[in-house]
Amino acid sequence: MTITITAFERSPDGGKGLARDTRVRWALEEVGQPYEVRLVSFKAMKEPAHLALHPFGQIPTYEEGDLALFETGAIVLHIAERHAGLLPDNPNARARAITWMFAAVNTVEPPILELANAKILEGDKPWTKERLPLVEGRVRDRLKQLSARLGSADWLDGGFSAGDLMMVSVLLRLRPSGILDEYPNLSAYVARGEARPAYKRAFEAQLAVNRPPEGQPVRE
Amino acid sequence: MTITITAFERSPDGGKGLARDTRVRWALEEVGQPYEVRLVSFKAMKEPAHLALHPFGQIPTYEEGDLALFETGAIVLHIAERHAGLLPDNPNARARAITWMFAAVNTVEPPILELANAKILEGDKPWTKERLPLVEGRVRDRLKQLSARLGSADWLDGGFSAGDLMMVSVLLRLRPSGILDEYPNLSAYVARGEARPAYKRAFEAQLAVNRPPEGQPVRE
Repeated sequence: MTITITAFERSPDGGKGLARDTRVRWALEEVGQPYEVRLVSFKAMKEPAHLALHPFGQIPTYEEGDLALFETGAIVLHIAERHAGLLPDNPNARARAITWMFAAVNTVEPPILELANAKILEGDKPWTKERLPLVEGRVRDRLKQLSARLGSADWLDGGFSAGDLMMVSVLLRLRPSGILDEYPNLSAYVARGEARPAYKRAFEAQLAVNRPPEGQPVRE
Repeated sequence: MTITITAFERSPDGGKGLARDTRVRWALEEVGQPYEVRLVSFKAMKEPAHLALHPFGQIPTYEEGDLALFETGAIVLHIAERHAGLLPDNPNARARAITWMFAAVNTVEPPILELANAKILEGDKPWTKERLPLVEGRVRDRLKQLSARLGSADWLDGGFSAGDLMMVSVLLRLRPSGILDEYPNLSAYVARGEARPAYKRAFEAQLAVNRPPEGQPVRE
């Protein structure tokens, strides 16, 4: 059955790979599943046809036969459960890898989203300059703990898993802020993720949609 | 094998059931699994023994034989996968229930966490009064979409599932703000969750640990 995902017609990041379809593309590349992409405009994302697929009017979605899913973490887990390559066989190791998926989206990503909101949604507010260090502090609190746990390991728990795919993707959102570079082992961890052939194919595929016109840099 | 979870020695909410151990207690009650609780002080949560179990120094954790997990969503999913009662048998319906678990923690909870941070961590800041309506607006954006999807249904997708358990638990955090009451179908949805016998047992169990001294109200 054909797998179809949705992605931005034009990603707000201009092709830096931070839109969440990159996470799903990466998972599909890791397990070697071909997929098709349906591009959705900002306008169409808020219309009934797309809201029927994704109640929060976002991308990505995932369609395969009569199954329709939304929510990146759930899509990546669905792919990982059905195809070899993203979860260990041992049941305990598998449960721990899924733990890291949830840790990525529910413990590490929320302060990073809050930092993004502070800059994007409140960038013009009078309080933002004074408030940003507080929000950045909450991001650093999490990164310090994550850095301590990762130590000198390549991945969070044994071999590369869907947990690492999600965590690397979440941490990538921080790169423009420079905060990631304060934690050399996390920075190296993210670089290891980006160096995977499956990530590179996923990144190139989203860039092909969003590539800026000749001569213009990828938007920051 | 005995299941042991961790919980606050003294919950910051004074027994209102908003600490995340209540979610795990609820899941265990739904599937009829007995469990033991180890209480952890705020000080002990940041010490090496607990950090080995939970790298972010939080509760709850889950131990069963040689398996140790952290992160509430992952623990609830682990319980739901191993015992009947929290996930449908049909594979597509099961994947959709898991989608709602991720939607609860990665789409609906982040703005609610941001609102909590604005009140608790930034309550004394000069910008908070002016900023709160913005943050509340982001919460309302999500609730409006969730309310539209739920409509007049009892649960998010067919029968009660782990997705509803997580979503109700996330929405419960909003009750003190009054925002939940603006969406009558969501308010009724949360009340349906609280009316489940398994939820009541979970709530009573956490209250038994945190019950305020005679004559004092449960803290807001």
